[in-house]
Amino acid sequence: MKIQDRVQRTIWFVSKREMRTIDQRCLPFRYEEFSLDCSEKVIFAIKEMVLRGAPLIGVAGAAGVYFALLELKENNNIEQFENTIQLIKNSRPTAINLVWAVDRVLRKIENYSDDYKLEAAFNEVNIIADEDVEMCRKIGLNGLELIKEVYRKKKDTVNILTHCNAGWLATVDWGTATSPIYHAQKEGIPVHVWVDETRPRNQGGKLTAYELMEQGVSSSLITDNAGGILMQKGLVDMVIVGSDRTSINGDVANKIGTYLKALAAKDNDIPFYVALPVSTFDRAIIDGVKEIPIEERSETEVTTIDGVDEQGNIVNIKIAPDKVKVYNPGFDVTPSRLITALITDKGVIKPIKDEIERVL
Amino acid sequence: MKIQDRVQRTIWFVSKREMRTIDQRCLPFRYEEFSLDCSEKVIFAIKEMVLRGAPLIGVAGAAGVYFALLELKENNNIEQFENTIQLIKNSRPTAINLVWAVDRVLRKIENYSDDYKLEAAFNEVNIIADEDVEMCRKIGLNGLELIKEVYRKKKDTVNILTHCNAGWLATVDWGTATSPIYHAQKEGIPVHVWVDETRPRNQGGKLTAYELMEQGVSSSLITDNAGGILMQKGLVDMVIVGSDRTSINGDVANKIGTYLKALAAKDNDIPFYVALPVSTFDRAIIDGVKEIPIEERSETEVTTIDGVDEQGNIVNIKIAPDKVKVYNPGFDVTPSRLITALITDKGVIKPIKDEIERVL
Repeated sequence: MKIQDRVQRTIWFVSKREMRTIDQRCLPFRYEEFSLDCSEKVIFAIKEMVLRGAPLIGVAGAAGVYFALLELKENNNIEQFENTIQLIKNSRPTAINLVWAVDRVLRKIENYSDDYKLEAAFNEVNIIADEDVEMCRKIGLNGLELIKEVYRKKKDTVNILTHCNAGWLATVDWGTATSPIYHAQKEGIPVHVWVDETRPRNQGGKLTAYELMEQGVSSSLITDNAGGILMQKGLVDMVIVGSDRTSINGDVANKIGTYLKALAAKDNDIPFYVALPVSTFDRAIIDGVKEIPIEERSETEVTTIDGVDEQGNIVNIKIAPDKVKVYNPGFDVTPSRLITALITDKGVIKPIKDEIERVL
Repeated sequence: MKIQDRVQRTIWFVSKREMRTIDQRCLPFRYEEFSLDCSEKVIFAIKEMVLRGAPLIGVAGAAGVYFALLELKENNNIEQFENTIQLIKNSRPTAINLVWAVDRVLRKIENYSDDYKLEAAFNEVNIIADEDVEMCRKIGLNGLELIKEVYRKKKDTVNILTHCNAGWLATVDWGTATSPIYHAQKEGIPVHVWVDETRPRNQGGKLTAYELMEQGVSSSLITDNAGGILMQKGLVDMVIVGSDRTSINGDVANKIGTYLKALAAKDNDIPFYVALPVSTFDRAIIDGVKEIPIEERSETEVTTIDGVDEQGNIVNIKIAPDKVKVYNPGFDVTPSRLITALITDKGVIKPIKDEIERVL
């Protein structure tokens, strides 16, 4: 997508010794690239959230294996190599995608002699990235049809509400929830996006608002509280969000607050869509609300916030009383009964077991 | 209520020449009192939100008339007096309570000769304040019965979720939504309050969390997004919020985001109560959702935030991208069908026209 008036991905090789990514810790205040030229930097980037979003973390993890192989070739220290692989896998404990991508590269190179392992790993990183782009593109094309349908009836700007950042900055390109929007823009369909700021980490306000602006998509930032009245007043035509984990019955665990928007959409007869690759379905989970545990996150996410002061420095300030107790659940679960359809890379399907199993 | 380990009101006369209030612009980071000793300072305090909350603004406005009378006695400039009264009334255009309180003092002094006007105004300010305290106390006693009922069944801590600050800092004492909670505390019923931070102005995180802590009521600060999952997980026994304006059919206009919590309460069979003095009923409004206009507020409420930096200074920082478009509606409307009951100073009633007309 477009950023800084250039078309690019979120992660890319500049040479066989260096990958680059966008330092998302500085967004939206400064555009900075972060160089990944050794396994240590990859681990740092994942751990410190230089990059985030499951697909993007996956590609970075895969690249980490490639850099670890480069280092192994230089120091011939197999013990250190194995240790590094573990460190990469543990750099974000909840990111299943990370372990999957690391293992995929490791499995791939097993089949090659030492002389070709590096080349095979390099290619596999690129294939993983390309596959993610293709998956997001397909989600976009499938979701585009839903936007087109609204536009055909309304013959006016289609207003789409989204929560958090299921955007291209969380993937390699296109994004998941944003992909139908970017495809609509490409087709010349007038769209406007209501961007939930998404407390406590403000990924909506900081990333989604930023990437939509950079891409030239019309958008307005709103507080997480505002979606209800917008829907009551007929200012939302559809909701599209992402998913962290989807039960086999179609319940969706996503960023905290998603469920509240689904309730408001239902109450106002507005279609509520979840955009996701079929890889996020979890066969082991049947009742999402009962079975998915609440991940409790740090209090400081709520009591402090990052921003830019008058001098232009990125600072962190306290916004709550001293010693306040905080409860900070990371996501909630939207029951399938509130979801109109799932926009997957394998088609738009109803959030019911039969249809989900069909695409798996 | 208790603040800084002292029991006091939010506004009080220290002499016949000076009133004091708590400078709420500094909360929760610093406790500072603000001196009101002339009409100009009253106007400043209302305009700059040194104090906020309809009942508190009303008392301040009434005091403004008293100070204007003091000034009239000194300079004998009736034109300036009348001008000052207008400035007080206009210091917060949407605060109906302000105009009501100012007019009430003006009407009162009409009946008195010049020699006694000052004394009459002084007394009327105190009466308005006392009446507000009494009204809030009655709301508290009526709401207390509902908390008691839950406690009798549950025999364990009663978890109450609230939104924004309908607390004693918005009134003269007790608050509206918080009054049942403070009365429960007084009775020794174990309560715990989930405090919505209430973006964009964070009155929950800054004021409700603070006043509950000062009063020693157990509470946890949460983001506005968190209420849904808490209800899904059975961690909320009841919701109590305030109201800015209530239609004759029981629809409630309150701080943006209230509607989303009402939807979540309904979806999880949790009682949703609105605490309000009967004076907030608006006979002219029948369908709240259709008839109450959306008040659009400033973009900077969303794109910037106040807090304390590492040096302990209160600063304002930018938390959104440059040039981002913002839509910032100030409140939403919760339809009566989502409201279990209204906790008024005249009793707990169903949100239906017949019952509302009965208490009016």
